[in-house]
Amino acid sequence: MGGDDAPQVVLEGARHYLDDASAADLSLVGPPDLLRSFVESLAPEQAAKVKSVPASEQIGFDEHPADAVRRKPDSSIVVAAKLIKDGLADVFFSAGSTGAVMAAATLFLRRVKGVSRPAIATLIPTRKAPVLMLDSGANADVKPEYLVDFCILAEVYCRELLGRPKPRIALLNIGEEASKGSELYQKAHRLLKANPAFIGNIEGRDLFSGDFDAFVCDGFSGNVVLKTIEGTAGFMMHELKDGFKSSLRTKLGAALALPALKPLKAKMSAEVAGAAPLLGVRGNVLIGHGSSSAAAIYYGLKQSAALAEAKLAAKIEAAFNGR
Amino acid sequence: MGGDDAPQVVLEGARHYLDDASAADLSLVGPPDLLRSFVESLAPEQAAKVKSVPASEQIGFDEHPADAVRRKPDSSIVVAAKLIKDGLADVFFSAGSTGAVMAAATLFLRRVKGVSRPAIATLIPTRKAPVLMLDSGANADVKPEYLVDFCILAEVYCRELLGRPKPRIALLNIGEEASKGSELYQKAHRLLKANPAFIGNIEGRDLFSGDFDAFVCDGFSGNVVLKTIEGTAGFMMHELKDGFKSSLRTKLGAALALPALKPLKAKMSAEVAGAAPLLGVRGNVLIGHGSSSAAAIYYGLKQSAALAEAKLAAKIEAAFNGR
Repeated sequence: MGGDDAPQVVLEGARHYLDDASAADLSLVGPPDLLRSFVESLAPEQAAKVKSVPASEQIGFDEHPADAVRRKPDSSIVVAAKLIKDGLADVFFSAGSTGAVMAAATLFLRRVKGVSRPAIATLIPTRKAPVLMLDSGANADVKPEYLVDFCILAEVYCRELLGRPKPRIALLNIGEEASKGSELYQKAHRLLKANPAFIGNIEGRDLFSGDFDAFVCDGFSGNVVLKTIEGTAGFMMHELKDGFKSSLRTKLGAALALPALKPLKAKMSAEVAGAAPLLGVRGNVLIGHGSSSAAAIYYGLKQSAALAEAKLAAKIEAAFNGR
Repeated sequence: MGGDDAPQVVLEGARHYLDDASAADLSLVGPPDLLRSFVESLAPEQAAKVKSVPASEQIGFDEHPADAVRRKPDSSIVVAAKLIKDGLADVFFSAGSTGAVMAAATLFLRRVKGVSRPAIATLIPTRKAPVLMLDSGANADVKPEYLVDFCILAEVYCRELLGRPKPRIALLNIGEEASKGSELYQKAHRLLKANPAFIGNIEGRDLFSGDFDAFVCDGFSGNVVLKTIEGTAGFMMHELKDGFKSSLRTKLGAALALPALKPLKAKMSAEVAGAAPLLGVRGNVLIGHGSSSAAAIYYGLKQSAALAEAKLAAKIEAAFNGR
């Protein structure tokens, strides 16, 4: 039960989720007293869906992830990861430290055989359906072969969770031609050609075309892309609002046109993009934003149920097993 | 005289530039017949400022830059580079193939002693004054030491052309802490600390804060940043227009609020960012967009005059000479 505003927003989000008649069973991992009073506050049919799993320690956002995971065996992140490992839960969802969730998942669940490195996937809104970006930041240093594996991970996710039977996967680059980009990207392009799902390079200006289903990149570039989108969107909204204030006419116009801004704001918000699955470990893992609101936790729990229903981790193992 | 719509837009931009009373002398490099009829069409006081330099060959955007530069000694790009080398002109400005301009500049002008690699600088609009990004794409593969040199190049440019006597230079990264990012970025951060102008890491979401004067990064990431900004801005404008069309109320509001969009559109346009200087070669080099309009050529010529007046290349040599 992590996150900047944990445990309040996590419990609030869980309560909202349990209101859904179709809600799946929930194992909540955290301080026993807190969980007891939460469960006691629920209606009996909701309480029946909750299992409380005690964890006495917490991993902070400022701790070294791998060290903390080793040093705190009774932290909620470690206890939750072990529930998955022991087959006692189907999805590990946390809005705690991304590094610690990754470290616990890698240490206790281990990598799927054949996957060089697990990667974090993020959905980006486009003019058409959202596209999946892989890796969003799990691997700042990659080798060309990793990108080949990311492509297969993206393929399975697009097929099993986005309903795209024949996903088109691209490589982020700085030009269309195979000869463009760094040595890493030139070699990755050559290797990716062996995968029929690979459609070639795309550039930052193509991200929102919706003409492909996913793209792969190193985790440094992926993280730069995500944060540059966030920065640009925030800057434009800010400038727009400043512009609207410039005269009585624009103020009036803005008041009338304001409803038109809402869908865009919603599309660009982190909540809609949702939590980010960690793909390539032996279990379903979903990482929420540290700044998750109760609504984000609610959507994350729904997303978790979808991952479990799709048996995503098992499908990924099958995809790599057949190679 | 290159560019997608050359030579028309180039000549149109030059004509507009020559209309300014303060216009500097112009050496136009290209097909002699074309230049002759252009000069004949000018008023005598304008024509007096123009020197026609014949060049019979052209380098296309699809040619391999270094090969083309070697194979076409009478191309306008090669002839123009040699004018700088021979001290017959102060600035080499071209809207032709970026790769070919870089290749010609590196081959004929050579690197400034002490500069590991020349880099392309681009101005990005922010909430306050624009910030300089270096490298925007000249070097897809870099070493940590290159970023140290980029920092000094950025410093000189900020001081001499942006009027910022004590520039604050940042490192693009995926987290604030020195331990964040790839091995390349961790090492670059350590090396950059020796420069008092270095203020630490920034992330994509900070790009528009205006709280620093420049940032350095590898050319792959820089190019990804530029094109992601372009893609995000285009996507948001598109969605906004769609939203405005959604009802009579928003249509009316948009019509009234429209003037508020203009400054933002102008701020995000390539023309305002202007042409991109190539820093670190022994001469002033300015690279225009291949898609430059006549207005972009006009601004590029004004920018060229500013580079010459600031004696930028000489200041850069002095900065590296003192190390």
